[in-house]
Amino acid sequence: MRKIKVAIMGATGMVGQQYIRLLITHPWFGISLLIGKKSAGKPFGDTVEWVGEYDPPSSIKQIVVNELNPGVGGADIFFSCLPSDVAREVECEFAKEFAVVSDTSAFRMEDDIPLLIPELNAEHLKLIERQRKERDWRGLLVTGPNCTTSGLAMALKPIDDLYKVKKVIVTTMQALSGAGFPGVPSLMTVDNVMPYIKDEEEKVARETRKILGRFANNRVAENDMQVAASCNRVTVTDGHLETLYLETEKKVNVAEVKKALSEFKGLPQLLKLPSAPENPIIVREENDRPQPRRDRNSGSVPGMSVVVGRVRKGLDGNSLQLTILSHNTVRGAAGNAILIAELLLKQGYLEK
Amino acid sequence: MRKIKVAIMGATGMVGQQYIRLLITHPWFGISLLIGKKSAGKPFGDTVEWVGEYDPPSSIKQIVVNELNPGVGGADIFFSCLPSDVAREVECEFAKEFAVVSDTSAFRMEDDIPLLIPELNAEHLKLIERQRKERDWRGLLVTGPNCTTSGLAMALKPIDDLYKVKKVIVTTMQALSGAGFPGVPSLMTVDNVMPYIKDEEEKVARETRKILGRFANNRVAENDMQVAASCNRVTVTDGHLETLYLETEKKVNVAEVKKALSEFKGLPQLLKLPSAPENPIIVREENDRPQPRRDRNSGSVPGMSVVVGRVRKGLDGNSLQLTILSHNTVRGAAGNAILIAELLLKQGYLEK
Amino acid sequence: MRKIKVAIMGATGMVGQQYIRLLITHPWFGISLLIGKKSAGKPFGDTVEWVGEYDPPSSIKQIVVNELNPGVGGADIFFSCLPSDVAREVECEFAKEFAVVSDTSAFRMEDDIPLLIPELNAEHLKLIERQRKERDWRGLLVTGPNCTTSGLAMALKPIDDLYKVKKVIVTTMQALSGAGFPGVPSLMTVDNVMPYIKDEEEKVARETRKILGRFANNRVAENDMQVAASCNRVTVTDGHLETLYLETEKKVNVAEVKKALSEFKGLPQLLKLPSAPENPIIVREENDRPQPRRDRNSGSVPGMSVVVGRVRKGLDGNSLQLTILSHNTVRGAAGNAILIAELLLKQGYLEK
Amino acid sequence: MRKIKVAIMGATGMVGQQYIRLLITHPWFGISLLIGKKSAGKPFGDTVEWVGEYDPPSSIKQIVVNELNPGVGGADIFFSCLPSDVAREVECEFAKEFAVVSDTSAFRMEDDIPLLIPELNAEHLKLIERQRKERDWRGLLVTGPNCTTSGLAMALKPIDDLYKVKKVIVTTMQALSGAGFPGVPSLMTVDNVMPYIKDEEEKVARETRKILGRFANNRVAENDMQVAASCNRVTVTDGHLETLYLETEKKVNVAEVKKALSEFKGLPQLLKLPSAPENPIIVREENDRPQPRRDRNSGSVPGMSVVVGRVRKGLDGNSLQLTILSHNTVRGAAGNAILIAELLLKQGYLEK
Repeated sequence: MRKIKVAIMGATGMVGQQYIRLLITHPWFGISLLIGKKSAGKPFGDTVEWVGEYDPPSSIKQIVVNELNPGVGGADIFFSCLPSDVAREVECEFAKEFAVVSDTSAFRMEDDIPLLIPELNAEHLKLIERQRKERDWRGLLVTGPNCTTSGLAMALKPIDDLYKVKKVIVTTMQALSGAGFPGVPSLMTVDNVMPYIKDEEEKVARETRKILGRFANNRVAENDMQVAASCNRVTVTDGHLETLYLETEKKVNVAEVKKALSEFKGLPQLLKLPSAPENPIIVREENDRPQPRRDRNSGSVPGMSVVVGRVRKGLDGNSLQLTILSHNTVRGAAGNAILIAELLLKQGYLEK
Repeated sequence: MRKIKVAIMGATGMVGQQYIRLLITHPWFGISLLIGKKSAGKPFGDTVEWVGEYDPPSSIKQIVVNELNPGVGGADIFFSCLPSDVAREVECEFAKEFAVVSDTSAFRMEDDIPLLIPELNAEHLKLIERQRKERDWRGLLVTGPNCTTSGLAMALKPIDDLYKVKKVIVTTMQALSGAGFPGVPSLMTVDNVMPYIKDEEEKVARETRKILGRFANNRVAENDMQVAASCNRVTVTDGHLETLYLETEKKVNVAEVKKALSEFKGLPQLLKLPSAPENPIIVREENDRPQPRRDRNSGSVPGMSVVVGRVRKGLDGNSLQLTILSHNTVRGAAGNAILIAELLLKQGYLEK
Repeated sequence: MRKIKVAIMGATGMVGQQYIRLLITHPWFGISLLIGKKSAGKPFGDTVEWVGEYDPPSSIKQIVVNELNPGVGGADIFFSCLPSDVAREVECEFAKEFAVVSDTSAFRMEDDIPLLIPELNAEHLKLIERQRKERDWRGLLVTGPNCTTSGLAMALKPIDDLYKVKKVIVTTMQALSGAGFPGVPSLMTVDNVMPYIKDEEEKVARETRKILGRFANNRVAENDMQVAASCNRVTVTDGHLETLYLETEKKVNVAEVKKALSEFKGLPQLLKLPSAPENPIIVREENDRPQPRRDRNSGSVPGMSVVVGRVRKGLDGNSLQLTILSHNTVRGAAGNAILIAELLLKQGYLEK
Repeated sequence: MRKIKVAIMGATGMVGQQYIRLLITHPWFGISLLIGKKSAGKPFGDTVEWVGEYDPPSSIKQIVVNELNPGVGGADIFFSCLPSDVAREVECEFAKEFAVVSDTSAFRMEDDIPLLIPELNAEHLKLIERQRKERDWRGLLVTGPNCTTSGLAMALKPIDDLYKVKKVIVTTMQALSGAGFPGVPSLMTVDNVMPYIKDEEEKVARETRKILGRFANNRVAENDMQVAASCNRVTVTDGHLETLYLETEKKVNVAEVKKALSEFKGLPQLLKLPSAPENPIIVREENDRPQPRRDRNSGSVPGMSVVVGRVRKGLDGNSLQLTILSHNTVRGAAGNAILIAELLLKQGYLEK
């Protein structure tokens, strides 16, 4: 099979680097373009401040970064991890002709743009037909959620299906890589926790409701669960840890919850997509798990499974407590977007 | 004024060291005895693994650590920060003759033992009369709460007074010093968070209800607020950070909450006790406060004030969100116990 | 005594904040001006990103930051911790009329500018007469060394006096605050060490030779010891740790070295200057000292003493090994500069 | 090929866990026994405190840990990472019948025991003949060096071959995993560096001389280079960083050094042993490399290559400075021992 050509818009950032790491060995996709705003015109290897453990291959380092210009073409799928303000200007331009899969917040909440976690709401891809018609696009635009939302929504889905979740009280302990690079100054992170992340709490609440909403009559009806978040930054490189307190309509049963989480599968598992982990959710029985460093790369596709632990009752029979961990730049960004692209390809959305 | 002689039982531990630091300049109390189990018979300076920033003075280093033997006497107040199992064996023996103020969990929940935060429930000291009668003690035993409870109960008190708190969902990010020394292995703390602290969540719930309970008919009637805790250990030396979600009986008003917290004073402030901070609660308006490293020593008596930030509405008009910080070995242990002792002295409980 | 008015140029930076912390309680000096380039025109409290543990007092927060304009006057001493390129443009302008004490590298190596650690080379202040004559200044310019040099030169001086040091092999483990704010991105500091600090190794070598040089014939003859440095950045907030291997002309005696270091005093001690620590050098006998967190604030003036440990023989009788710690923003910057200003005042250099 | 049965003595420790991680996918060796002192009799999964990122496979967890009893047999190669005192008692007992490869310090410096880095001194294996004869063993005992020595000796070898190294001044910044588990308390590692590691400096000096010594007349004549070490513990999980200052007999040429290091190969590369990295030494040109987190797993066999950077001249033409990084539990322990075992097998030492 000839590889589908993909471009990375915002390639020099933290998430851009994660895209490169994941795509260089991808069975279906091949990187044909790296696109940047400030870095355009320079060889990628000269302009990137690479922060990961492994160096990019020299074939990637030699790519000259392209301008942000939809007229150039050169790829079938454009992954976007641009800064939000830049994304707002250009993503729709690219979507006129090309498939755009975006991790940015720019268009996540638009009525006709799917906000997708492929295991949870693949059905929302039906919005593509509407966006093409209403916006006169030959391409498409699909978005992935905020890095904090992605783990949360995944863990909530099977529980909401069982008991209907009415209220979610979530406190996050988020990784530094979620703030990009250079991100948080080190002097703020030694012997410290930052108790606030700008705009994050609002995003978590509204994105969760959209993702877990139902598609009907050509639109997504938001889930009516209420979400209150407290977002904190801790001194961890990768992996967002979140404690959840849930109130449900029906009585809960802890064993049933664990079973539903462990056995949960979505369309990507059914279709055996390359980036689909065997288990989107892994349940740990030990009291002291999940831990960011030890569990963030769990499962058959490292970084793509949400790890859940400490599932226990809340204050009454209609409440639950649990702790979840999700790799913020894999399932929370690049990995989820690549899985979206795999689903788009498999379901024929990339055919012209 | 001649100084009151005080002893520290468990002097070589983390909290013991904090006692020493706070007492060496105390205006009323003078250290006359250091007591230990394993370290007995050795000069303190030779047996302690001192972890604080400043070395103990040489006058302290030269003290030969005493055995755990109530017959020895030699002090008027015995501060106890022994391991809980040892505390259970000996604290009551000491209380037969002496005033014992304990940070251990051994007797906190006993019916006739006050669990005290002097600003909140000084009235519970009336249990001393009962304990003396029922147990035939000439001394007394008063306990301080778990390090996580102390900040929580302080912040809840003014809000409970205003609106009656029905439900508390609290997630903690606790400091390493709370686990004692050697405590948590460093390999567990680099690039990681530990999502569990043994027995902590249960203690937080039940101690909060006792502290905020009312004294009547010679007993403490527990407050009926419900508390669900998720306790985590983060890579911070000192200072427990906690996010709170509260549900209240009456409608909340954020400005009113901030005012009540800021203006809150207790009996120690009225009596101008030496370890009483001018403001037991400090409210910060900045979004990114409180932070452990920058705020744990705030206020007129470093480590004794609880710092509150991010006060905001919850999901409806009867709910609140806030973030609190409390120094776990000062207000959460040694400092609170010393304040208890000051109150005991001032109120005449130490007279024979 | 009426306080001498002092200005801080570059007040919003890391070192600027340290100046403020040290000067607000200074017995001789009072802050009359805060000066900045980008922050000019705004109240200090609104423009500074304060990183220290304690907030600046509100009297300081309300000061409107002044422009960098020597014509404005308003102070007798101008402390400069400006970025080096800005310093190069303006320090000499200020020195035409005012006393300037600078932590920047801009003019440290100029022939007629003293590079001063008051305990070591107070005699170099005689260059002031020369600079005034040659440059037609009514003010003066004195500089302090790089934060890494300051601890090194202090520890070397008594040893050089005893044995004549020929060769210094030094490896540093430097604190994050040495890189300013925002400084090093946190993603580079978790589970990592940065093995390089730009330009640092060269500065350490040449500044040490100048400081330890002899004043004669109106100039400083550099000390001819050779210095080879390897500079690293470790995940510590404050306090530069350095391992030294020294080769000397004369045979060494470890006990004699410890005695000379412990007993070392300089002119500031003799004059009892307010910022002069009782012992500029503190020698520790324990194998595992000095440690940054526990020793950086040692001594009678916190942060002003260099702490030395692990003094031992090298590979032969003419070599020594030792480990030193110096607080990089106190003795290594603001504290040393304030001590310079105290000496200037005491020796009559500030009289017009 | 049927796999050779190997046992791990001290399997529950940090290095034991690293052995398991490396051996579960080994092409030649299969784990047949896990041996422990305290953990004997329990299933490995119940007794180990696993600290790595990935869980051990359940096939390993189910193995019941064996006693330390040479009579049991059950393996052809016994890897030992026992505590040194235990090792001293039992390794020779096992060596009577079996091949023992040990990471412990117990017998490293014995005259007839090879201290081996397979790329450097494979010739020292000829001591096996002597040890068998003198000690009447049918088995054998080969040791690997201390984790700090291994990187140092590797980097020194090509330079010593070129110029003859006379003096080595080395400062280490060592990882926490080198102290085992629980190892260093976390309260000692936050915002701190520990400037001392017990016995380490002596080991580094004498082991380096033995490894780089020449085999002749049935014994190893130690290399006469002098080594002075200063060993520090920094807050890094894995990877020892070391700065080197070298003095050589012949004039140095930096380009020549880099070439010699980059091109260095040993017998394991020639024999294409499974754990032999393509390049035992990797030279980086960037100023800010090597870094522990980013470079410790470099190369074709992660953790087996020593990464060298900042190669530059010293104070004169006969001196060199460089910075090296070596993975302390892979090349510094388990990985090096497995490579020794591969070499033993390939060279026929395991045939009975």
